[in-house]
Parts: sequence; C-alpha cells; structure tokens
Amino acid sequence: VQQAIAVLDSGVGGLTVLKEIMRQLPRESILYFGDTARAPYGPRPAEEVVQFTCEIVDYLQQFRPKMIVIACNTATAVALQVVQDRVDVPVVGVIRPGARAAVGRSKSGVIGVIGTEGTIGSGAYEKALHQLSPRLQVISIACPAFVPLVEAGNFHSEHTREIVAAALSPFQSEQMDCLILGCTHYPFLADAISDVIGPKVSLINSAEETAREISAILQNRRELAGSEEIPMLQLLCSGKTEPFQTIAYEWLDGQIRSNPVVWRVPQFSAT
Amino acid sequence: VQQAIAVLDSGVGGLTVLKEIMRQLPRESILYFGDTARAPYGPRPAEEVVQFTCEIVDYLQQFRPKMIVIACNTATAVALQVVQDRVDVPVVGVIRPGARAAVGRSKSGVIGVIGTEGTIGSGAYEKALHQLSPRLQVISIACPAFVPLVEAGNFHSEHTREIVAAALSPFQSEQMDCLILGCTHYPFLADAISDVIGPKVSLINSAEETAREISAILQNRRELAGSEEIPMLQLLCSGKTEPFQTIAYEWLDGQIRSNPVVWRVPQFSAT
Repeated sequence: VQQAIAVLDSGVGGLTVLKEIMRQLPRESILYFGDTARAPYGPRPAEEVVQFTCEIVDYLQQFRPKMIVIACNTATAVALQVVQDRVDVPVVGVIRPGARAAVGRSKSGVIGVIGTEGTIGSGAYEKALHQLSPRLQVISIACPAFVPLVEAGNFHSEHTREIVAAALSPFQSEQMDCLILGCTHYPFLADAISDVIGPKVSLINSAEETAREISAILQNRRELAGSEEIPMLQLLCSGKTEPFQTIAYEWLDGQIRSNPVVWRVPQFSAT
Repeated sequence: VQQAIAVLDSGVGGLTVLKEIMRQLPRESILYFGDTARAPYGPRPAEEVVQFTCEIVDYLQQFRPKMIVIACNTATAVALQVVQDRVDVPVVGVIRPGARAAVGRSKSGVIGVIGTEGTIGSGAYEKALHQLSPRLQVISIACPAFVPLVEAGNFHSEHTREIVAAALSPFQSEQMDCLILGCTHYPFLADAISDVIGPKVSLINSAEETAREISAILQNRRELAGSEEIPMLQLLCSGKTEPFQTIAYEWLDGQIRSNPVVWRVPQFSAT
C-alpha cells in the first residue's frame, strides 16, 4: 500500500519543511495542508491552535497517512502531545529535531534560539533542550519582524540586514556556538543571520533536521517508500489559492518539475 | 522501569559511539559489550560475524535493554537485518545514520565514503545512500591503514598525515562536498583527514549521527530516560580486561567522572 506523509502548517512556512522532505526523501508521497484561511497561528490562544490542529488532523485521516508532520513551531509547541495521543501513526513536530541537532553539534553547551513571539513565549525549545541535556544554557530571542520580511520575499536587502542585526544584537555570549532557527520561515534569512552572527556560530535549520528525523523514524519502522512507488505531491489550503500557490511554486522551485494544482478545502473558514 | 541502551562492538571502536551517546543523552543508562576476544571482525566471513553478533545479542537480552545499538560498521553491514528480525526492541546500526546525515548535508549530491576493507567491500553505504536518494553519486575508498594508527594513539604525527594523504589521494572529485567517516575509529583522525581533504568537504562523524538517531527514535517511542533515573554505565568485554580498560578510560575521558570497572564475560572465547 502506498501511503503519504501528511504535512500541516498554518500557512506557507511549512513549505520549507516540505521542500526538505522532498529533497532528502525523493521517493515519498506527500500531502501538504496550509491553513491559510486562519493563518497566522502565532497570535491565537493556545486552545484555539490545538482545536484547529486537531480539526486538520481529523480531516487528513481520510487519506490514511503513514505519518503526520506538524510543520509549524506554534502548533508543535502547544498541540504535538494532543495529536500524538489522538492518532495511531507517528507524529513529528519541528521543535525536537532542531533541539536534538543543537545538542549534537554544540561543544560549548550554550545554544541560542530565535522564533516568533508565540514560540519563544511558550518555552518549548528550552523544555526540549533540557529534556535531552539538563545542563545546557539556552538564550532565546523573539524576532517578530522576520516573518513579514520573508513573506515579502525580502531576503537579501540592506533593510533586511539592518532589521536582522537589530534583532540579534542581544546575543552577546562568546560561548554560544549554535543558533536554532526556530521558525519555518527563517531559513530564507540564513545568509543575513550568518553575516550578523558570525562564522563561529552554526545555524540549525529545523526544516532540514525535521526531514532527517522523519527519514530516521520511517526507516526504523520499515515504512520508507520503496523504489516501485510513485512519489506524488498534493497541495491543499483552506483559504484562497492565491497567494499560497504563487509562494508554493516559488519556494519549491528546484524540487518540483512541474507546478502541481493547489486544491482549496472549503471546510475550514476564516474566523 | 529503568532500562539501559545496549551497545555492542567487536572491540574498542564502538567506544566513540558510546561517548557520543553519553554526551547527547546524559540521562541514559548504557551497557557496552566489546567482543575483544574475537576482534577484529573485518577479516572474518560474513556468516561468522552474523553468528557472533547474534550470540552477543542473545546474551544481552537478559538485561532487558530498551534498544540495541550495533556500534560496528562490519557487523551493521552484515547483521543488522538479522538482529532486527530477532528482537522486539529497536535495533540501530551505524551505517544508516551517517548515510542520512550525508543526504541531508550534501548540496552537490556527490558523497565520499571511507571505511575498512570489509565495510567498503560490502557496499552497505552505497546501498543505504541509494535507498534514501537514488541519484546520488558515491565514491568509496577502503583505508585499512587507519585503524592501527588509531589503536596506537597516533592521531596527529607527521607519519599519520602522510598515511592519510596517501589513502585519500584517489578522491579527485571537485563536486564531492561530504565525506562519511565509515568506521568508528576514524573520528580520531578527523583533523588529519580535514587537513588533507580541505575545508569545503564536510566530514560526517557516524558516531555523532548515530547518537542523534538513537535520541530521535527513543523520543518518538516515548522511551527517553526521565529526570528521576540514575544514568549507569556498565563496560563488558569478552577478552582480557587489558588493553580494553586503558583505551576505554582514555577515549571516554571527559564523559566519565570516575573510571568504571570493566567486567570480563568469559562465555565468548577467542577462535
């Protein structure tokens, strides 16, 4: 039986995770759901994010996915556990893989984290890091200005560099040797962040690390797609297909040979 | 119930994996078995390596480990599948984590692998890499001179540098951007290898990557040790306790606060 990996996000951010899954696991079929009608999740109360995430998971169950990926830091922070208790298949979020990569790479034990206000405020990265290794020192900073820059496609301008430099100026630690990009949008700003933070700090791209962890878990369960399977990609969103479709085609460029149709799922309307 | 991770190897090489598990998962209890009476496995026929590995796995079952780690490339190459079919707990080898890390890190799709003659001859890395991503180009070279250098503690001499340079001279690809250290001994030669191969090639340390994968699988199964558990380390070997004990204390330095007793398990005698 050919089964897909289901990837869900509040909107477009999870496309960076989707792209990495496609790159690292080119044989897998994937179903992506962006809840664009109700994005962003960041400012919403936790209970609402849990409810939306569960609604989407229930909807996606009809496709019998072999794994569910919560490709959104906010939803992972508040709903991972609930979803894991709700379904029989493995559920992977985007926080633990980044935390685990930082634990593996850091020699100094001083780790930085940047994310949206919701993610940083939840303390989810500190919790994930300390669950693995209790003595780490974690420095977290919310960077609310970054997502609008990315969605505007403004990755490399002087303006972007100035905003990034201002946001990262509180990182003063000489010991910090890893910085977790704790938001799915941030890999687009990696060059600007690296210029500001310097070459001694490794940037941890949680999209890349999440894809690796998906690969490890599927292989351990002996559920990787075989060579006889046809890798299919389905893109779904709850809001209008534009601008989702344009951003999807742009961000997935290099991993898709032709532009897939984007389907609108009308069940989940804006609130 | 507090359960240990069981780590087995033909001798001392797996200690690099043990050390990384201790570093990345400081809360876990670990049982290490080095089959020093019958090391090295490299030159032995595959059936014999499978038999030895199964004997050790059967012996270790009395400790009810929550996971079995085959911390030996030769044994992973020939016995991983057999052991996975033999036990109920997850079994992790050292080949797939390194392969997966290379797939994640390589941008060019050209990946180098070095290992013992047994490991390179088995084609296990090519197989693991191509199972994940069929279009990769893989260049493999056996480096039989490296293990004796490491076991002699000869990591940084001019002699070591010359041997490493000679062994790696067949790597001519301009595109290769990752080199998998496909033998548990090789991380000790990382500086020499990096000097020879240049800064543009990322070295993949399979000990580090295996420890990360162990962390991911245990967390996904909700089997990580909790904060109330006491991390215990047991070192077992089948041959004389020396020189195993001396090498263990030296290699684990930095991860152990006091030197643990090494127990000899007399059941498995030299053949």
